[in-house]
Amino acid sequence: MLYGALEAGGTKCLCAVGDAPQHLQDITAIPTTSPARTLAAISEYFARYPIDGIGVASFGPVDLDPHSSDYGMITRSPKQEWQGANFRQYLQGKLGVPVAIDTDVTAALLAEQSLGAALGTTRCVYLTIGTGIGGSFWTGEGVYHGLWHPEIGHIRIPRVDDDHFIGCCPFHGDCLEGLASGEAIRQRWNQNPDTLPLTHRAWSMEAEYLALGLVALFYILVPQRIVLGGGVMQQSQLFPMIRANVSTLLNGYLKPFAESKVLDDVIVPPHFRNTAGLVGAMQLAISLTKGRRTDSP
Amino acid sequence: MLYGALEAGGTKCLCAVGDAPQHLQDITAIPTTSPARTLAAISEYFARYPIDGIGVASFGPVDLDPHSSDYGMITRSPKQEWQGANFRQYLQGKLGVPVAIDTDVTAALLAEQSLGAALGTTRCVYLTIGTGIGGSFWTGEGVYHGLWHPEIGHIRIPRVDDDHFIGCCPFHGDCLEGLASGEAIRQRWNQNPDTLPLTHRAWSMEAEYLALGLVALFYILVPQRIVLGGGVMQQSQLFPMIRANVSTLLNGYLKPFAESKVLDDVIVPPHFRNTAGLVGAMQLAISLTKGRRTDSP
Repeated sequence: MLYGALEAGGTKCLCAVGDAPQHLQDITAIPTTSPARTLAAISEYFARYPIDGIGVASFGPVDLDPHSSDYGMITRSPKQEWQGANFRQYLQGKLGVPVAIDTDVTAALLAEQSLGAALGTTRCVYLTIGTGIGGSFWTGEGVYHGLWHPEIGHIRIPRVDDDHFIGCCPFHGDCLEGLASGEAIRQRWNQNPDTLPLTHRAWSMEAEYLALGLVALFYILVPQRIVLGGGVMQQSQLFPMIRANVSTLLNGYLKPFAESKVLDDVIVPPHFRNTAGLVGAMQLAISLTKGRRTDSP
Repeated sequence: MLYGALEAGGTKCLCAVGDAPQHLQDITAIPTTSPARTLAAISEYFARYPIDGIGVASFGPVDLDPHSSDYGMITRSPKQEWQGANFRQYLQGKLGVPVAIDTDVTAALLAEQSLGAALGTTRCVYLTIGTGIGGSFWTGEGVYHGLWHPEIGHIRIPRVDDDHFIGCCPFHGDCLEGLASGEAIRQRWNQNPDTLPLTHRAWSMEAEYLALGLVALFYILVPQRIVLGGGVMQQSQLFPMIRANVSTLLNGYLKPFAESKVLDDVIVPPHFRNTAGLVGAMQLAISLTKGRRTDSP
């Protein structure tokens, strides 16, 4: 069997083929320009291979309800042109193979849970802290889907005393994403986050906000592992600070995390750096062709 | 088949028998005094019936890990004497029938999900707002269990501007439970909550805090229904206020709840008033004897 994997991002779409998630071949980047041009280029790429199915890890929000007439459609996007575009429908129509779709965050969760930093756990979360904050989690039987995909990034958290930034979320102002996303850091300090020194207050504040957000995940999901990915988390000095803050906030209340050292193995960086989306997309394709997903048309 | 149901509370233990959760017979209250005396009385009650199994809905925290040597044990309790007590072990030893145990909150969730206010939903939450705040949720396949039972009540939320109460949680001060439990209301206003007039600021503030807590559940679980029970929620004026605040806080971001009217069917009071624990306990017993739970010894 040969599978196709597509990670559709805001600036580029990564394509690959392979017979297993670990075997990504011919990784190719196609610029995300207009839907017409980009979709055609992607379709041409996959048409060169005798593939049995495709998995798509898509930027979003995407309609993921298999019963919806808009299944697979990008429902709202800062990229106006892409609103209403549908990778799944297009590729299925053009190539005549089943196409599975989920969010880029869920694809990263699949990759980390089955082959990466959350391997061996059945209660785990993947949270990306980049331009925005998004997450997805695994509940034992598989990826959790509510009535809509979880939008973990928009929970409300208390503000840190010395922070007077109003928050950058266009919907909620100072929700977690509004206070702790990469965009929030950029706006608050009026500087590219990458240029802030390691000891800048920006990072200790970031660790405080992320810990307040993680506490909600700890109390609601009591997970074995939380993988923190995304551009902001490449600032690896954040990890020990976040763990220390979480430990202080939990204050011994949850027995499994009562010893703070445990958190070293709970709050961890991703295993995959740039290929999590593609690895997860291929797993979506494999699940669909093996009938483990029921969202096939 | 005849089943036993036990709802173990801090002041009394309710016992019942029956052949189905809807058929609770001989409901009997036994005072919760010393473990020795109370456990003996409960055992005597059940010994009068030819029961095939017992379900226990217990106050907690309880060790719910079937692989733990402390399985079923009350691990920490304000009632010092009860620390280390184990309903499950005791009744199984005395009566020689399988005994299933879960928290009182999870039992209430089971009752509401299968026969009550969350009937027909597969993604639902039961949250009790009483002396403390606790919750449990259903993920499609069944009750969610993390590494430990969820302690939803202890998430962090922003404070309301005109509230200067420090919070009453002995572990976290002003977590959700510390700000919005019945005990918090009593301490903040120095008054029994039941004596506060319907239009008192206590209630609008309570609705604001509960909405901030619910928003975390909305963004993480995107549930079809959230059942709000417990003593505080008998103040039914809270429901419309909570729904309005949740709608404002979500601000249309989650598509399924974009129309605020939808929330009338999502945030609801319980169907069961006083028997949810017993109904759920009997469901635990039935699941165990039918082999749908694997925690039998």
